Amino acid sequence: MTTDNWRTYLQARQDADLEDLLDFIRIPSVSARPDHMPEVRRAADWVVHRMRSAGINNAEILETDAHPVAFGSWMGAGPGNPTVMIYGHFDVQPAEPLDLWTTPPFEPEVRDGRVYGRGATDDKGNMLAPILAVDAMLKTTGSLPVNVKFLFEGQEEIGSPDMPEFVERYADRLACDMIFSADGLQWAPDQPQLVEALKGIIAFEIILRGPRSDQHSGLHGGGIANPAMGLAQLLASMKSLDGVVTIDGFYNDVIALTGNDRSEIARVPYDDESYLAETGATETFGEPNYSTRERLWARPTLDVNGLTSGWQGDGGKTVLPAEARAKLTCRLVAAQQPGKILDAIRAHVEKNCPAGLSAEVRRNSSWGDPFSVPRGHVSTEIAAEVLEEIYGKKPYRTRLGGSISVMTTLQKATGVHATMFGFAHADENLHAPDEFYRVEAFERAKLAYGLLLERVSKA
Amino acid sequence: MTTDNWRTYLQARQDADLEDLLDFIRIPSVSARPDHMPEVRRAADWVVHRMRSAGINNAEILETDAHPVAFGSWMGAGPGNPTVMIYGHFDVQPAEPLDLWTTPPFEPEVRDGRVYGRGATDDKGNMLAPILAVDAMLKTTGSLPVNVKFLFEGQEEIGSPDMPEFVERYADRLACDMIFSADGLQWAPDQPQLVEALKGIIAFEIILRGPRSDQHSGLHGGGIANPAMGLAQLLASMKSLDGVVTIDGFYNDVIALTGNDRSEIARVPYDDESYLAETGATETFGEPNYSTRERLWARPTLDVNGLTSGWQGDGGKTVLPAEARAKLTCRLVAAQQPGKILDAIRAHVEKNCPAGLSAEVRRNSSWGDPFSVPRGHVSTEIAAEVLEEIYGKKPYRTRLGGSISVMTTLQKATGVHATMFGFAHADENLHAPDEFYRVEAFERAKLAYGLLLERVSKA
Repeated sequence: MTTDNWRTYLQARQDADLEDLLDFIRIPSVSARPDHMPEVRRAADWVVHRMRSAGINNAEILETDAHPVAFGSWMGAGPGNPTVMIYGHFDVQPAEPLDLWTTPPFEPEVRDGRVYGRGATDDKGNMLAPILAVDAMLKTTGSLPVNVKFLFEGQEEIGSPDMPEFVERYADRLACDMIFSADGLQWAPDQPQLVEALKGIIAFEIILRGPRSDQHSGLHGGGIANPAMGLAQLLASMKSLDGVVTIDGFYNDVIALTGNDRSEIARVPYDDESYLAETGATETFGEPNYSTRERLWARPTLDVNGLTSGWQGDGGKTVLPAEARAKLTCRLVAAQQPGKILDAIRAHVEKNCPAGLSAEVRRNSSWGDPFSVPRGHVSTEIAAEVLEEIYGKKPYRTRLGGSISVMTTLQKATGVHATMFGFAHADENLHAPDEFYRVEAFERAKLAYGLLLERVSKA
Repeated sequence: MTTDNWRTYLQARQDADLEDLLDFIRIPSVSARPDHMPEVRRAADWVVHRMRSAGINNAEILETDAHPVAFGSWMGAGPGNPTVMIYGHFDVQPAEPLDLWTTPPFEPEVRDGRVYGRGATDDKGNMLAPILAVDAMLKTTGSLPVNVKFLFEGQEEIGSPDMPEFVERYADRLACDMIFSADGLQWAPDQPQLVEALKGIIAFEIILRGPRSDQHSGLHGGGIANPAMGLAQLLASMKSLDGVVTIDGFYNDVIALTGNDRSEIARVPYDDESYLAETGATETFGEPNYSTRERLWARPTLDVNGLTSGWQGDGGKTVLPAEARAKLTCRLVAAQQPGKILDAIRAHVEKNCPAGLSAEVRRNSSWGDPFSVPRGHVSTEIAAEVLEEIYGKKPYRTRLGGSISVMTTLQKATGVHATMFGFAHADENLHAPDEFYRVEAFERAKLAYGLLLERVSKA
């Protein structure tokens, strides 16, 4: 039986696969640092080489305006069989602050069953696993149960700025029937999950301007408007004291949670105490009539990310500031549209700009539609079956308050809803010092991708 | 006639007096810089020496916990005659940014009838003038028309932190009948003024705290309260959109402006256009039912001086900040009390602290009672007569939105209301590069102090 063959092969290759992962992590492919561009490209080359040695002979670099894509496909199952696209990314977050790492971020080390190093879990370990599963299958059987395309990008950690243009340009080559993202998390080492929705995002800055330059607050206080106070008043006009966004039209396109949605959400264990311990907040807070988890997973938000105005040093300084700035993000849920929400915000700011000040709303780069997988979607259900087989438990059906713009980018280009199928865990210091990946998760990920391809072929 | 004698003497000494001023400016007595402490002391020594050579034989250094005081008295007019105290300061603001000076700040130069150098107008030129007037009188007549005490401090530019304790300790030696402050401004080179009121001040910081550290705004937005939004809401609760402070009790002790007060204020020329051109604001703004000048001069204020929270760099960052801070000052008018107002603010913050956050109110160093000279106060009326004699015009009766805490410090210690009697002008780059003092103002100041002492003796 073929399954036994490739599984046995994976067993035998455990040490070699781990060596491959350590090799991969050694490349400091930090996409946010312009001086590391050659390293990101080196990682792309490494991925192409690894795909080729797995038997994906056409693996190649595809260029964007910046960091390249590593692409490869195996279409040997023929047009009568489904095509599965597997997504991941080989760029990593900056490793700073370096002094908080136990061992250097790009000199990976295995300790207590964990691989420590920048990118170990986000996303090098996760994205390498499906390549190794395919390697095992091709080496043992000479073929795969379905057609497979690999799409690995090098700019996920900087918001994938070139990917919308890229997927549009290569839409033909990206055509597929299902997409699985190897960039994703499981609930816990002993509990799988399926993420069924992600929030969309808009990011913007509000700038209020008053006098030409900072003025003496004694000589001019009471004479002219204060932009810092004006900003406070303007922001306060956007949200009620009990946490409801008060911008006209903000909730218009929010699809109300059904009773079924609410019970699905309530089914996933949650308790205030652990949540508060995790964040250090003293109490939960937000829109009335929703549970904390409903707000986190399924309600839109408006958050101030930063405030800047006037004197920020120690002690006091008697200035009436020339300007005040607030950076904000909104997280959106289906069917809210980023453009429409930003328009509503612009209209609100124009209408509520305090007297004596002028206001500007400036868009920042984060931008993405909400994403949700239709209930019962085939790739999600196949993933659910594989997860249940591996963990011996049904996956939780969860949502994420965060935003992964490539999910909607791929959906727009291919018409296919991606299913998150990654094996990281939230405690693995993603984006932080001492990032690690569990070796057992690595083994499980390889096995999961093998089983997934088999199950797709039988669907 | 004695007047002619000392005036002739001053005429003859013009060049020598100017050389003295240049010499004085050459000492970089920057009180804000700990490494300049010896220079501040050198300036104190210089002042003591100059008083002695003027005939104030008992002139001496009096210590505080930091920068010293230069004190001297001439009591030769006897106990039957009034004692006049003259105040000034020999410390200066830091000179930075140095590259914006046309000539080095501590290498003074006379150009076009102006003395350029740090401290030229604030306050070395102004405080030297009464010493030189006394010098001229003592040199020509051997006596003064009244008893005189000189109190020159070396820490005005850092808020006179040791002076309250100092004036309390030396209350006996500071006893006097009138106080004139040689630290002050005239309206214009051809228009005198008498400043009849200064605002008091309190400075404080409001800190709102939420989660332990900055959180991901996607993963936690909607789950817990956002300190930056909470701060906006709290600040907005402190002031109405039309500029009225909404803190309970804030206006309780404000003495309403009388019809007479309002017409005095209206008598001083003012136009919106020049005021807006000066500040660069597009319109004036503040409490309804008061003119702009009434608000600037005679109404209390609450101004945000600075805002700090979360991400302040370029672009966006999706954080839900751990804390948000606002620095504020209130300017107070008679009979508001700093302690009572701060208590009202603490009570307001406690009552209005947004849900899910904790608030702290922290006092900053600026602190002072409002100061106003009773209408018809004898030293102010004498000053008015001297100014009218010199300028050929009645002085404007003005107020200042700023705060000079030493005025109330001296009042508390001696029971005497000080009258501002200085000859700087607002355009002379006080606290800025290319600070200068008009040579004609220097001459006028010496003359004015001579006439003032004569007139006090006849009052």
